Amino acid sequence: MRDTPYLVVDVDLLEANLAAMAAHARALGVDLRPHAKTHKSVDIARRQLAHGAVGLTVATVAEAEIFAAAGFDDLFLAYPIWAEGPRADRLRALAGVARVRVGADSVEGVRMLAAAVRARRPGAAPLAIAVEVDSGHHRSGCAPERAAEVAAAALDAGLAVDGVFTFPGHSYGVGAGSDAARDEAAALGTARDALTAAGIPCPVVSGGSTPSARAADRDVLTELRPGVYALGDAQQWELGSSGAASIALWACATVVSRREGVVVVDAGSKILGADRPAWTTGFGRALDEPDARIAALSEHHATLALPAGVPAPALGTRLRIAPNHVCSAVNLADALVVESAGVETGVWAVSARGANT
Amino acid sequence: MRDTPYLVVDVDLLEANLAAMAAHARALGVDLRPHAKTHKSVDIARRQLAHGAVGLTVATVAEAEIFAAAGFDDLFLAYPIWAEGPRADRLRALAGVARVRVGADSVEGVRMLAAAVRARRPGAAPLAIAVEVDSGHHRSGCAPERAAEVAAAALDAGLAVDGVFTFPGHSYGVGAGSDAARDEAAALGTARDALTAAGIPCPVVSGGSTPSARAADRDVLTELRPGVYALGDAQQWELGSSGAASIALWACATVVSRREGVVVVDAGSKILGADRPAWTTGFGRALDEPDARIAALSEHHATLALPAGVPAPALGTRLRIAPNHVCSAVNLADALVVESAGVETGVWAVSARGANT
Repeated sequence: MRDTPYLVVDVDLLEANLAAMAAHARALGVDLRPHAKTHKSVDIARRQLAHGAVGLTVATVAEAEIFAAAGFDDLFLAYPIWAEGPRADRLRALAGVARVRVGADSVEGVRMLAAAVRARRPGAAPLAIAVEVDSGHHRSGCAPERAAEVAAAALDAGLAVDGVFTFPGHSYGVGAGSDAARDEAAALGTARDALTAAGIPCPVVSGGSTPSARAADRDVLTELRPGVYALGDAQQWELGSSGAASIALWACATVVSRREGVVVVDAGSKILGADRPAWTTGFGRALDEPDARIAALSEHHATLALPAGVPAPALGTRLRIAPNHVCSAVNLADALVVESAGVETGVWAVSARGANT
Repeated sequence: MRDTPYLVVDVDLLEANLAAMAAHARALGVDLRPHAKTHKSVDIARRQLAHGAVGLTVATVAEAEIFAAAGFDDLFLAYPIWAEGPRADRLRALAGVARVRVGADSVEGVRMLAAAVRARRPGAAPLAIAVEVDSGHHRSGCAPERAAEVAAAALDAGLAVDGVFTFPGHSYGVGAGSDAARDEAAALGTARDALTAAGIPCPVVSGGSTPSARAADRDVLTELRPGVYALGDAQQWELGSSGAASIALWACATVVSRREGVVVVDAGSKILGADRPAWTTGFGRALDEPDARIAALSEHHATLALPAGVPAPALGTRLRIAPNHVCSAVNLADALVVESAGVETGVWAVSARGANT
């Protein structure tokens, strides 16, 4: 018996999720390059490659370093890396041990990248970039029409250009997945055409988020980068991307306080994360009480409001709580307890936890 | 030069915050027992004791173990601990090395605590409990009128009773601090009187949150347990508990993407935390751009919307981002970079990071 709260991965559900997305990518005829920021786990990443993934996506140089050290040799840093200071040296070292593609959305950014990897490696193979474009999420990414300008600057500075990418993050809204996939294809098509018109080959056209993956446009995309699909979470359940039955990670929590219609469990924001978009129904979901809602969340308390007529579980009852956003929950834990058919089979380290730089 | 993002503590601002709350508690004539969940740092806890704190408050047995191992010998676990499984053994061991007070809000809970510490220590000094009562936050805590029932059960089971406590968490709302302090005093007064009427001494009447501390009732409370005051955060700024100038912790972040009126910095929810109560104006605040707002937050992106007419900082600019909730941010970091007058003077470990059990 372990003390609660702790995070559990059901390896059978994980495997089913990995197989389903791999089959989807094969059916579309696109490469699958899962985002490892979701799980930060070498064990899960190895399983993704075993299912046919072409490489990994990561968000930071630190994540790339950890996966490269574990033997992963094809990494996409899908982020507009600003390669200044120690990060420049780290990126140069990384590019010596793995095939590295880095995101960029500005001319200044690609010049900084070029300076970083050129400084002490005369004659070395060029670093590859992909131009990030905004497809409607309005976060980072240049306008699709400007992609060729960034790509040309990269070539001028001695970098290679793999192509273009976007993150259609506006897929995170109820019913928004298909429209976001359409926006994604339109932006990526415009960006690809801009490169082609400028005489710059564009072999990689990369998109994808878990809520939009099902509607990804095979005529435009060559690569999909979903992350959350591996483990699932309450957000994906409430978005309809995947059912509650496919959620492969939860916090095991104990009822520590109760009153009429309410129980408090010991899984709070310090194990679930505090993510609570306006379209969610609460701060996560209790898998054993699907009609209940987590009405409030503190650091060590989740306040679970039960539907009328449902008796409150007894003090000491253990409940499975799915976080709203699995990427946040995993990043709070040093390890994930692995179960198969309810029996503990091992523990996986969260090797890239806190790898923010 | 360090790679961003990373958390910085300004030790001079920290010291001023510690001194101010210590002076406030002295002026009220109450004990100060700061909540260490905010900083999870042995270095900061030592400074709190140097300013006169009588001991520490913690949220979990794991936090208590870490602070006890560092020599702190007076600890209040202000949480309704369910002492089952390995936690029972851990609590028993803890009570052997420190003076431990544990929260309880149910008869079942105190019986479990008593069984835990009684099992293998015949004749040992009793564990002390304090009865948690609900003062309006509606999280854990029994009704104040029921406090004597829980206290009597504790005495029956062979535990000591220190008194009563509450967390007036409904102080977290703009202008809500004074009303919450009034509710806190009313609930604690009722609970204390219930114990007294039952012939149970009640030397400890413990309350306090940072937003309500200024209005704490000296005629009722004997002890204050604020946590956030040590470091401050964007929430306290927006609540008016403390000004921006007293915020002693921030993420040092870099501008990685920009467009008209917007910059994106590399401090996202994996370093700031995702806390975003409805009454806040965004997902944190940029201390160098006080009129800007963090309109969106992803794991590695904070999207900072600038007021009309304010030019967007250049790519590569470093900005100080105050998290909404400092307790969440600290729990994401392994270490805090310490600065004095803008010069790095050391690094403090976040010793109790992730100590959720």
